[in-house]
Amino acid sequence: MTHSIRAIAAALGAQAQGDLDLAVTRAAEPATAGPDDLALAMTPAYGPALQKGSARAAIVWPEADWQALGLQAAIIAPRARLAMARLTQMMDKTHEPTGISPQALVDPTAMVAVDASIGAFCVVGAGAVIGAGTWVADQVSIARGVVIGAGCQIHAGVRLQAGVRVGDRVILQPNVVIGGDGFSFVTAEPSNVEIARETLGEAPMTAPADPTWHRIHSLGGVVIGDDVEIGAGSTVDAGTIRATRVGPGTKVDNLVQIGHNVIVGAHCLLCAQAGVAGSTVIGDRVVVGGKAGIADNLKIGDDVVLGGGSVVLSHVPAGRVMMGYPATKMQLHIESYKALRRLPRILRDLAAR
Amino acid sequence: MTHSIRAIAAALGAQAQGDLDLAVTRAAEPATAGPDDLALAMTPAYGPALQKGSARAAIVWPEADWQALGLQAAIIAPRARLAMARLTQMMDKTHEPTGISPQALVDPTAMVAVDASIGAFCVVGAGAVIGAGTWVADQVSIARGVVIGAGCQIHAGVRLQAGVRVGDRVILQPNVVIGGDGFSFVTAEPSNVEIARETLGEAPMTAPADPTWHRIHSLGGVVIGDDVEIGAGSTVDAGTIRATRVGPGTKVDNLVQIGHNVIVGAHCLLCAQAGVAGSTVIGDRVVVGGKAGIADNLKIGDDVVLGGGSVVLSHVPAGRVMMGYPATKMQLHIESYKALRRLPRILRDLAAR
Amino acid sequence: MTHSIRAIAAALGAQAQGDLDLAVTRAAEPATAGPDDLALAMTPAYGPALQKGSARAAIVWPEADWQALGLQAAIIAPRARLAMARLTQMMDKTHEPTGISPQALVDPTAMVAVDASIGAFCVVGAGAVIGAGTWVADQVSIARGVVIGAGCQIHAGVRLQAGVRVGDRVILQPNVVIGGDGFSFVTAEPSNVEIARETLGEAPMTAPADPTWHRIHSLGGVVIGDDVEIGAGSTVDAGTIRATRVGPGTKVDNLVQIGHNVIVGAHCLLCAQAGVAGSTVIGDRVVVGGKAGIADNLKIGDDVVLGGGSVVLSHVPAGRVMMGYPATKMQLHIESYKALRRLPRILRDLAAR
Repeated sequence: MTHSIRAIAAALGAQAQGDLDLAVTRAAEPATAGPDDLALAMTPAYGPALQKGSARAAIVWPEADWQALGLQAAIIAPRARLAMARLTQMMDKTHEPTGISPQALVDPTAMVAVDASIGAFCVVGAGAVIGAGTWVADQVSIARGVVIGAGCQIHAGVRLQAGVRVGDRVILQPNVVIGGDGFSFVTAEPSNVEIARETLGEAPMTAPADPTWHRIHSLGGVVIGDDVEIGAGSTVDAGTIRATRVGPGTKVDNLVQIGHNVIVGAHCLLCAQAGVAGSTVIGDRVVVGGKAGIADNLKIGDDVVLGGGSVVLSHVPAGRVMMGYPATKMQLHIESYKALRRLPRILRDLAAR
Repeated sequence: MTHSIRAIAAALGAQAQGDLDLAVTRAAEPATAGPDDLALAMTPAYGPALQKGSARAAIVWPEADWQALGLQAAIIAPRARLAMARLTQMMDKTHEPTGISPQALVDPTAMVAVDASIGAFCVVGAGAVIGAGTWVADQVSIARGVVIGAGCQIHAGVRLQAGVRVGDRVILQPNVVIGGDGFSFVTAEPSNVEIARETLGEAPMTAPADPTWHRIHSLGGVVIGDDVEIGAGSTVDAGTIRATRVGPGTKVDNLVQIGHNVIVGAHCLLCAQAGVAGSTVIGDRVVVGGKAGIADNLKIGDDVVLGGGSVVLSHVPAGRVMMGYPATKMQLHIESYKALRRLPRILRDLAAR
Repeated sequence: MTHSIRAIAAALGAQAQGDLDLAVTRAAEPATAGPDDLALAMTPAYGPALQKGSARAAIVWPEADWQALGLQAAIIAPRARLAMARLTQMMDKTHEPTGISPQALVDPTAMVAVDASIGAFCVVGAGAVIGAGTWVADQVSIARGVVIGAGCQIHAGVRLQAGVRVGDRVILQPNVVIGGDGFSFVTAEPSNVEIARETLGEAPMTAPADPTWHRIHSLGGVVIGDDVEIGAGSTVDAGTIRATRVGPGTKVDNLVQIGHNVIVGAHCLLCAQAGVAGSTVIGDRVVVGGKAGIADNLKIGDDVVLGGGSVVLSHVPAGRVMMGYPATKMQLHIESYKALRRLPRILRDLAAR
């Protein structure tokens, strides 16, 4: 599919110069772009690469002298990544509706919108509801009573357990699991975990009389808000009595764990391999860096930013930037860390006094 | 399904007061409970919420003045979470036996108990054995020769590879993988990892003459004990010569990795995203916090508690509570960490002397 | 299947002594080995165990007095793990070709080699190509246009999304996801993450006027090189414009995340639960320890070794051994860590002066 420079600029809400009727077929990196490609050269660093490739058109940085760079047309992008969002959306393939596969097993009491698609070897349980235009790939499990909104993309191998409700325009990447049972167990007498927390680890732990872990069942389900995306292999556990919740517009990366009873606010980002333990409440627009972990039963305020790899063991007020293990304010973490790196030398100096 | 307060109290082994014939249909949080709900108000903090909701019956804390809180009946729970275990079990839906789905592919030499259930699009290999009352959801893979005990729940998308034996009453959440090949590779000459471990990283690493990783195949399988539960997306690798083992009563959360040849004892808890590297041996009743990691070839004694996010690089004697990276005794970790936070100020003071 | 000591020694390229016609059926640990087993006793530590078991033949360490240990035949292994690689390969079962399952759904435009195998409930999309001798297990998803080379093993529940190309002799363990969409989002105005990075967290974060995350679509696919192995549940995201790449001979463990646009070189090891954020470039023969994380847009040189649990936040030159959070040279990390453990006592001494 070809697009004119004029059409692309219009879609991007950006200005264009030169031969606006020039047609391009795909986006490419400047150095490897061919004459029918639109090179992406959003910063001056890409100038030399542009001249190495043979693109005739490019998206360039605001002050670029595009004619000197050998281009016949240029689109000017003041905010590069925003332009990327619009451009890649324009050039992506869409899933065409395919109806219900004859190899899918759909319970007769399920309600599937006329223009929804359900792939081969899917199972859709009794009373499940699938909204208009929603596209379900192959080999997906949709348990009895699950509700999925309109315009969703549910990729291969996703598992939606009983008690799950999914909003509109939600994207679930392959092998996501929503609504598995929460990890909630209790011993008849106080367990070593409870004792260690209370004594801060002072007493040595000993074998309890009855080490059996009794299971607290998960009856509360999961509610996924509108416009949420969840990455491949991530897991969101069902709540105990009320639902675990992921707020509208929140984006979750791959291999992220969201425990039972957790509430994640709106427009958050949870990066890859992050984990949120049971019953923790996260505000709106919170950013959780890759591999960051948040302990159970905590409150994380709005607009908090947690650095990659940080481990949060206490409540965090709104607007704070945190790092470290245990996580503290980012400035304090950097200061402590710098002091630590100087410490061996200082101790040697002290000893020599 | 409704339950009388009398019946619930009996199931919980708890005392009840007031109108014991009052019937409730489900459990609810105090603030949102309706007149037919059983409110869960196990600590005094829930008192005001109880009065906000319209519950007529509740599970309350031992000294609660339940009549003053507007209730007609109350169940008294001395250990709140234990009551939750029994209550949620009572109110959970059970999987009714459905037999073998006509859409499942079961090898004629497999042995499936008469009252076991096997869902659609499952594959059960030659010689596999599935015990009495075991419920296998849809789209599960059970390889040739796999043995599953009685009363198990195997959820959608679980993969059991050749050489896996599963005990009785085991619960495997969706997309669990048991018996994948271990991560075990060797170069012809000593590799950089071996050199770095020996020299503690002093020598810079250089390219080996032959960087090829030769694969050590996994012939040992996996043995999962009775009453084990494993969370969504977790992986347990096959042993090399003998089996990788998870002991009876142990509970494993989501996205946990258990490497080849590992032995996990009985009644342990492994929280979300924990990882145990190859050939490590873990005792009984050990608690591994969320995101904690244990290096390979280590021994972790009975009743050890590892804090969330800790990284264990050496053996741990029985009964110890550990934290940090590398993990040390929890008290030492807290002391060091407090000193570190004071360090920048102390260094400034020292410089000013 | 039995093997003579002579045949095993020849396969291992090792010397053998004693009764070379003695036949063994499987490998076993020394203490539990029976008379038809080949005991694995590659270090002197296994001497006593050998005498406890009843093996007649063993692989032993170079100076072992095998006759005094009660053996009738011995294979001498100068490099134990290399011998294990060859021995376990010899004793492993191979997947026999089974053709295309009648329960698989293969698009008529897909091209499947005559001797390839495709299991039940697999979906193979339009134009996909599957090479000679490749074995695809059950319930696998292969999207339109995916190309898989010769001699691969693709295990149950693997998801290969559109735009994925897989080389020859690649092994993908169960539930691997290749080619899911990258985690790439942008707000219309600079987000809190961008502000926190620029100010190092000094300014408190506030709510942006428009918190909407716009999605950058992933058009670039993934290229997996020859002889790569990827562990259960791991995920490799598609690139934005060009492909995400995993180089030939690289081995990836379970639950590893490789972000969009990442390039991993040849002959690397990525251990369990490691994570590599978007657009980072990793050289050849790099070893990434378990749970280690590498931030986005970094360069990691050839032959780097990253210790388990380390968090890399800056570029790493070739040949360096790194540990810690943030990761530094291993020697510096150990020095700092030792100083930190002494710090509480030193501060007490200073206060007492």
